[in-house]
Amino acid sequence: MGIHVDPVRDDAVRSPASDHSGAPATVQPVTWTGTGIRLLDQTRLPEDVVYLDVTEVDQVVDAISRLVVRGAPALGAVGAYGVALAARQAQRDGWSPEEFERATERIRAARPTAVALSLGVREAGRHLDAGVAAVVAAADQLTIQDAQRNREIARHGADWIGGRLSERLGRGPLRVLTHCNTGSLAAAGVGTALGIIRELHARGWVDLVHVDETRPLLQGSRLTAWELSAAGIPHVVQVDGAAAGTILRGEVDLAVVGADRIAANGDVANKVGTVGVALACAYAGIPFIVAASHDTIDPDTATGADIPIEQRDPDEVLSFRGARVAPARSGAHNPAFDVTPAALVDALVTERGVTEPADRRRPVPTT
Amino acid sequence: MGIHVDPVRDDAVRSPASDHSGAPATVQPVTWTGTGIRLLDQTRLPEDVVYLDVTEVDQVVDAISRLVVRGAPALGAVGAYGVALAARQAQRDGWSPEEFERATERIRAARPTAVALSLGVREAGRHLDAGVAAVVAAADQLTIQDAQRNREIARHGADWIGGRLSERLGRGPLRVLTHCNTGSLAAAGVGTALGIIRELHARGWVDLVHVDETRPLLQGSRLTAWELSAAGIPHVVQVDGAAAGTILRGEVDLAVVGADRIAANGDVANKVGTVGVALACAYAGIPFIVAASHDTIDPDTATGADIPIEQRDPDEVLSFRGARVAPARSGAHNPAFDVTPAALVDALVTERGVTEPADRRRPVPTT
Repeated sequence: MGIHVDPVRDDAVRSPASDHSGAPATVQPVTWTGTGIRLLDQTRLPEDVVYLDVTEVDQVVDAISRLVVRGAPALGAVGAYGVALAARQAQRDGWSPEEFERATERIRAARPTAVALSLGVREAGRHLDAGVAAVVAAADQLTIQDAQRNREIARHGADWIGGRLSERLGRGPLRVLTHCNTGSLAAAGVGTALGIIRELHARGWVDLVHVDETRPLLQGSRLTAWELSAAGIPHVVQVDGAAAGTILRGEVDLAVVGADRIAANGDVANKVGTVGVALACAYAGIPFIVAASHDTIDPDTATGADIPIEQRDPDEVLSFRGARVAPARSGAHNPAFDVTPAALVDALVTERGVTEPADRRRPVPTT
Repeated sequence: MGIHVDPVRDDAVRSPASDHSGAPATVQPVTWTGTGIRLLDQTRLPEDVVYLDVTEVDQVVDAISRLVVRGAPALGAVGAYGVALAARQAQRDGWSPEEFERATERIRAARPTAVALSLGVREAGRHLDAGVAAVVAAADQLTIQDAQRNREIARHGADWIGGRLSERLGRGPLRVLTHCNTGSLAAAGVGTALGIIRELHARGWVDLVHVDETRPLLQGSRLTAWELSAAGIPHVVQVDGAAAGTILRGEVDLAVVGADRIAANGDVANKVGTVGVALACAYAGIPFIVAASHDTIDPDTATGADIPIEQRDPDEVLSFRGARVAPARSGAHNPAFDVTPAALVDALVTERGVTEPADRRRPVPTT
C-alpha cells in the first residue's frame, strides 16, 4: 500500500485564503491508477493531504470502513472501481467464482446505509464478462455521469432556491446551513448539497454558510470547511447542537443537505444530525432542501423505517484522537445516520429536477 | 492558588462500577474554606479529580469564565461566596467602596446567561453590612436551600413523570434523554434534571439514560456520564446530533433538561442543543421536561428573545485539546445557549411544583 503526498495540492489547500486562484475548485477523492484505486485519505484532512493507493479487496473494505473515502456518490465510484480491482486480484491470485463473489459482496456490504455503494458494485459487475478494462471503463463512465449529475443538481437547486426565496434575495444574499460533507470530497464533481451552495455562491447569493461540525468524525469542520476555504466561500463552523437554535433565532435562510438513501415514500437517510436540522427548519418556516442523485431513491425500500442504520464503533464518540473523553465504563450509542420524514423535506433536488415532498399535493417520485 | 487532589474521592470515581457503595452519591463543586472558595475543577474531569482553591476575585472570574465551575445552581453558590471572598480581599488590600463594587460586578458579569450567578451575588451582597462572616453564612444558607430545592424538584418531577407515563411504566422502566450536566456537579445537592433522573432510578423506573455528549465542552460525556457511572445508573453517551433521530425512532420515552434562565413568558435558555431536543420530543409526542429552581424564572426578562446569549471563544469549536480540527482560516459561531419556546415545554418542574407551559390553558408562573 503506497502513500502519496501531492505537495502542490497540499500547498493550495493549506492556505486557501492566500490565493484562491491557486486552490483546486474541486478534488478527486477516487481515481483509478491502472492497477488499483487512489483514494484521498479523508481521515487526515485538513492537516494532511495524503493519497492512499489500494490494490487489494481487503484494503478497499478497510478504507471504506474507516471513512478514508465516504460520501454517497464517492462510495458509488469506489464500489465500481472496487469490482475492477477485485477482478484483477482474482486473475492474479486464481480465485474461484465463489471467492470473487464473496470479495465483491464484502465491498458492497462495507457500509450498509448508502445505496450508492451497492449500485456501483452492481453496475460495474454487469461488465465483468467483457474483462477488467470494460469494468474500469464502466466505472469511469459512472464517474463522468456523477460529475454531470452534480452540475445538474447544482443548477436545479439554485434555480429552485432563487424562485422560492426571491423576495428574501431582494434584501441581500442568503445565510445557508449545511450538515456533514457533500462536496467534491464526497462525489466526482462539485458535489450534491455543497454543489448547490457553490452555485449559489457563483450567482452572488451567499452571505455566509453555517457548517455543522458533524460529530463524531467532524466531516463538517474537517472537510466542508476545507472545501469552502479553498473555494473562498465565507463560512463559520458551529457545533451540531447550535443548528436548531441558530435557525430558530432567524440567523439562517435555508438548509441544504445530501442523502445516503431515500425510501420510496420520500423519507431521507442522511448523516446523523440531519433530522434535527429538518425539524428546526420546519418550525422556523425556512426551506429544508435535500440534494442527491436520482438513483439515491431506492424503490426497494418502502419507508425510512426500512433503511438499515449503520451503528459504528462507540470509541468514535468516547475518545478523541486516542484520548478518552468519557468515563472508562461508559458506553456509547453511535448511529451514523438518521431518517428525516418526507413531510419535513421542502425540496428534493436530483439531476432530473425538483420535487416537493413536504407538499402533500405532489407525489414523491419512486422510479 | 493551591491545587488539591483528593485521592480517596479520585479512586472512588475512577472506577465507579467496581464498588458503587464507595462512590460518592453526590459531589460538592463549591465549598468555602474559611479563606476562599474550593472548586472542583470540572475542566479536568473525568480524568483527574482536582480541587482549586481561589482567594482572589481575579481567580474567581477566571474560574467561572473557563468553566472550572459551571451549572446554574453552582454559579449561584460561587456568586455568593465570591462576594465573601471579595469582602475579605477588600479588607486585606484596603479597597475603596467603588473598587469593591467593581470587583463584585466582575463576578456577576463573568457569564451573562444564567440568572443564578446574579442572584447569588445580589443575595450575598445584602448581608455585607453585617460583615464577612454574615456573608459567608448567607452563602451557606443559599447552598443548603439549593440542596433542599434539588430534593423537591426531584420528587415533583418523578411524581409528574409517574403520572404522565403511568401506562408506559406498566410495560417497564423508561429510556430517558438528557443534555449537558445538571447533576451534583452543577448544584449543591443532587442537581435539577439529573436529580429527577436519580429519583426515577431510585424508584426503579430507569432502563437507560441517553446522555448527549454536549459539544463543544462535552459536559455530557465528561460530567454527566461520570455522575451516572458513580451512581450506577445505566447510560450511553451519544453525539448531540443523534438526539433527534434517537427520539424519532422511538428509543426514548422522555427528555429532562435544566435551565439557565426562564423568561417571564416561559421561554427557556439552556445549553446549546436543548431546543433541538425539545423539537424532536414535540414531533415524537414524548414529554420534554425542564427542571430548575423557581428563581431561574426571571420576571425582568419578558421573552426568550430578551435573554442575552453568551458567545464563547471560537477555539472551543475549532480545536480539541490544543489540536486544530478545522482549516486555519475557518471561523466559528459558538453560542453557549439556545432558547426553547415555552410552547415546546411539557413540564416545568421547580421546588414549588410542576406547571405545563405547552398546555396553553395554563399560565406560566412569573413570580
